[in-house]
Amino acid sequence: MRTLEWSVEKNELKMIDQRLLPGQFEIITFQDHIAVSNAIRDMVVRGAPAIGAAAAFGLTLAAFNVKTTLLNEFKNEVHEASIVLLASRPTAVNLSWAIRRMLAVMDTHTGSVSDMQIRLLEEAQTIADEDIEINKRMASYGATLIEDGDTIIHHCNTGALATVDWGTALGVIRMAHEMGKKIHVLVDETRPRLQGSRLTAWELQRYGVPFDIITDNSAGYFLRTGQVQKVVFGADRVAANGDVANKIGTYMLALSAHANQIPAYCVVPMSTIDFNLDHGDLIPIEERDPDEVLGLNREGHPIAPEGAKARNPAFDVTPNQLVTALVTEKGIIYPPFGPNLLKVKSEQ
Amino acid sequence: MRTLEWSVEKNELKMIDQRLLPGQFEIITFQDHIAVSNAIRDMVVRGAPAIGAAAAFGLTLAAFNVKTTLLNEFKNEVHEASIVLLASRPTAVNLSWAIRRMLAVMDTHTGSVSDMQIRLLEEAQTIADEDIEINKRMASYGATLIEDGDTIIHHCNTGALATVDWGTALGVIRMAHEMGKKIHVLVDETRPRLQGSRLTAWELQRYGVPFDIITDNSAGYFLRTGQVQKVVFGADRVAANGDVANKIGTYMLALSAHANQIPAYCVVPMSTIDFNLDHGDLIPIEERDPDEVLGLNREGHPIAPEGAKARNPAFDVTPNQLVTALVTEKGIIYPPFGPNLLKVKSEQ
Repeated sequence: MRTLEWSVEKNELKMIDQRLLPGQFEIITFQDHIAVSNAIRDMVVRGAPAIGAAAAFGLTLAAFNVKTTLLNEFKNEVHEASIVLLASRPTAVNLSWAIRRMLAVMDTHTGSVSDMQIRLLEEAQTIADEDIEINKRMASYGATLIEDGDTIIHHCNTGALATVDWGTALGVIRMAHEMGKKIHVLVDETRPRLQGSRLTAWELQRYGVPFDIITDNSAGYFLRTGQVQKVVFGADRVAANGDVANKIGTYMLALSAHANQIPAYCVVPMSTIDFNLDHGDLIPIEERDPDEVLGLNREGHPIAPEGAKARNPAFDVTPNQLVTALVTEKGIIYPPFGPNLLKVKSEQ
Repeated sequence: MRTLEWSVEKNELKMIDQRLLPGQFEIITFQDHIAVSNAIRDMVVRGAPAIGAAAAFGLTLAAFNVKTTLLNEFKNEVHEASIVLLASRPTAVNLSWAIRRMLAVMDTHTGSVSDMQIRLLEEAQTIADEDIEINKRMASYGATLIEDGDTIIHHCNTGALATVDWGTALGVIRMAHEMGKKIHVLVDETRPRLQGSRLTAWELQRYGVPFDIITDNSAGYFLRTGQVQKVVFGADRVAANGDVANKIGTYMLALSAHANQIPAYCVVPMSTIDFNLDHGDLIPIEERDPDEVLGLNREGHPIAPEGAKARNPAFDVTPNQLVTALVTEKGIIYPPFGPNLLKVKSEQ
């Protein structure tokens, strides 16, 4: 199944509980937008594109739950639900992008409440289906950058689980593998939530791509000793100048790649590019519960003395100078990112 | 008690089991050099200076266990024990430095076997006592670099537990704190063995120094956003040109400090400097059991899918260009490290 799926029979949203992988594979069913918002916050679902689609379906649930037949009241209630969903997580722009797209449908179309409900569901379905299409297109572009024999460092999880299906940066790896290129992946474990060792490793096993898990702090060692040819990662938000906000650790990884003349590619749909922000330091960085650092996983296996405190920024900003290219569904974009991104946008 | 202590009554070596901290505080007693060698390999004791002292006491145990009264036979057996101890871990040069110093005592003095046993014990005791003296001298020099209000990133554990007592880089922090400087420490958790969140946090709590634990991959975020004024770490071996081999992750940390114009100080006794190696890439890098990456801590809490593989280099090399200064017991040494280290050495 997809990372998230709409049940047409029951008008429910089903999502894989990513907190339990790889130990358990469980599906959670959602009937309202509050539960979806909590699931996004708790990282039942994570990854910028998956969060966007989850929010769209969350808003659809809100629309179906409205009891009124008055269109204005309906719109007000859906707007209120959108505010709840928007507040779930601050960094990934796909969340607000998807909500904005849903609200635009509601605001620009007219009809009965039940018409609007159907239209919103259709839009959410379109967002989800387009995500897979876009991912495959990015993967095809990105795979041209991967050479036979490459060892590739990958950060966090950017695979099928981070999207509706297929993935962004991991989708490039999957496509290169399916094209028959012999590649090896070094999987950053990605502390504190271990999306690399838990989720990316799980996906790579299923795709049959050979890999080794590494600690995040050892990526520099492998880069400096000539054992790596490419670095790939996704993004939660890209500023208009190409600065990349992505999972914590991306900056140190990209810096290490740059210092060793290894190309670092950010694989990112156009929906993740925030043209309203001039540069990356304007992107809000979520700081999450210190317990994620002080214990391991949600089971809370303690790894620090009792009473110890922690800081837990969930993302960092990688300056555009450290990014070799942005791989989008519109093609591979090279520096200078500012004008080149604008050009692609104007062609959309 | 010290990290390791010789029991004069029983001719035994006692060491804190650092694998169990901070949850449990247990002392292990050692009666022979094989057990000491295994303890070094298993990281019951770790930290370059502590490993050196442990090896010296390990050789003393071997000397006391020799049954012969013939000096030549005695020397042969002690030499054989030295080979076992030398093979325990490859990267920290203090191990071979301490063994060499012990063997020099045996080779340059004459007397009965029991005289030699006493002399070897005295030399091991001297190595241990000198370590504390040297650490306090380094701390005094290093503390002059720390300013009131500094936030300092510290990697791995370099405190009392990594030495016989007091510590190297953490000793600088402790000294600055005792001098009344208001400082805050960001403690790199230091995957995979978590010497930061387990050991450094435990020590800082006891010293009353305020701190937050951070994931290794977030150090760059704090450095880039102006929240850090100094970076400090120790070393397992420093080449003649000032290249530093230290706990995995030091390279990415130093690179991130350098990219943000934050000084990075390596606090290191002269015994850790290997004048036989021209540069750091000649330093042997130990690759340890992948299970350290695939599970958490020695209890083996699994964090990756069954069957997943890992790479686990325990150290990396930080090129001298990224090191602001070496803080030694002979003073603070600035670049160019090659000639400046030689100068200090010739004055010894």
